[in-house]
Amino acid sequence: MSQSRGKFLTLEGTEGVGKSTNRTFIENYLRDQSIPLLVTREPGGTPLAEELRELLLKKRDETVDPTAELLMVFAARAQHLNQVILPALEKGQWVLCDRFTDATFAYQGYGRGLALETIRSLETLVQNDIRPDLTLILDIDVETGLKRARQRGDLDRFETEELSFFERVRRGYRERADQAPDHYQLIDAGQPLEQVQADIRSCLERQLTLP
Amino acid sequence: MSQSRGKFLTLEGTEGVGKSTNRTFIENYLRDQSIPLLVTREPGGTPLAEELRELLLKKRDETVDPTAELLMVFAARAQHLNQVILPALEKGQWVLCDRFTDATFAYQGYGRGLALETIRSLETLVQNDIRPDLTLILDIDVETGLKRARQRGDLDRFETEELSFFERVRRGYRERADQAPDHYQLIDAGQPLEQVQADIRSCLERQLTLP
Repeated sequence: MSQSRGKFLTLEGTEGVGKSTNRTFIENYLRDQSIPLLVTREPGGTPLAEELRELLLKKRDETVDPTAELLMVFAARAQHLNQVILPALEKGQWVLCDRFTDATFAYQGYGRGLALETIRSLETLVQNDIRPDLTLILDIDVETGLKRARQRGDLDRFETEELSFFERVRRGYRERADQAPDHYQLIDAGQPLEQVQADIRSCLERQLTLP
Repeated sequence: MSQSRGKFLTLEGTEGVGKSTNRTFIENYLRDQSIPLLVTREPGGTPLAEELRELLLKKRDETVDPTAELLMVFAARAQHLNQVILPALEKGQWVLCDRFTDATFAYQGYGRGLALETIRSLETLVQNDIRPDLTLILDIDVETGLKRARQRGDLDRFETEELSFFERVRRGYRERADQAPDHYQLIDAGQPLEQVQADIRSCLERQLTLP
């Protein structure tokens, strides 16, 4: 990436891990450092991609084919990346995205059992060589997370999955973090919030010193 | 395919080529021969796939990324194929589908200029080795077709494309028909309707005699 290009940060984690709270924390921290920042989310981030998000999250009488789900996720991503994320990075903005392709590997790959190789080829088709500069994975034991998430009320199609589904998703995130430690930071989200945010802050500080 | 499996017929063509009229003709003809038949369409054919169709056809202020469009089409297809088409064929029903993957090659490949190789790999991902037994392509010069289509009123996102787009789509259909004459029949839809339907009938008669 050229020097003037913004950094691409993504935030990941299973249900109830505290993504919203910590997204706001990251946003405030970076704005305090006068970083020009776009905060967005997946699936979503453009009108079409948000409409796809609705179709994905809606509970349905019909069984959703896992490959259909996977292709919808990448359709939304192609739209979001080309219309929103890349133009922002090219203008020098940093982009903070709530979930990105790691979520696809974790949920559709490890969770649904789709071939990781298929996901990798769609990743290349849609993203070419675009990958996040840093991915923060908020990690918590699945039962604690789900208990928190389910207190929020109405569950979407994913939140109604079984415990074992989220165990696989969590394992997916952890394995991906292990495989590329330069690009991932696994944050223990079971700690008190103050400590979670101290950990996040030190990751961000390191990013700010990198070219 | 085993003997008890139904046949998979698809109907293709550019705008204003008379697909609806001739679809009804084919349906009536096959029902008269006591063929158990499911008539369906793409994109669409299940509640989720019809919702994707709406997103695809809707006119938008935002530019729709061609790869996003392609992935939405195949997402709808994965859902339709696995939930509707394959179960019907396996029960011994014939399936008549208004547009299928040839439309994707023609519209997204030749029309939008996406790599045919990409479309072929998505075709394999979604369909494995499922291909139509027979594809009828209604062929007409593009200007005549568009004039007819535009008399129907409100245009969708595809129908508002330029003449040159539909010229490429038509060329795509014709090239595909040339490459696999055993699986395609190009029907001259510029003829009087009676002659068009005589041509269609003779294709169907031939299918009925094949194993």
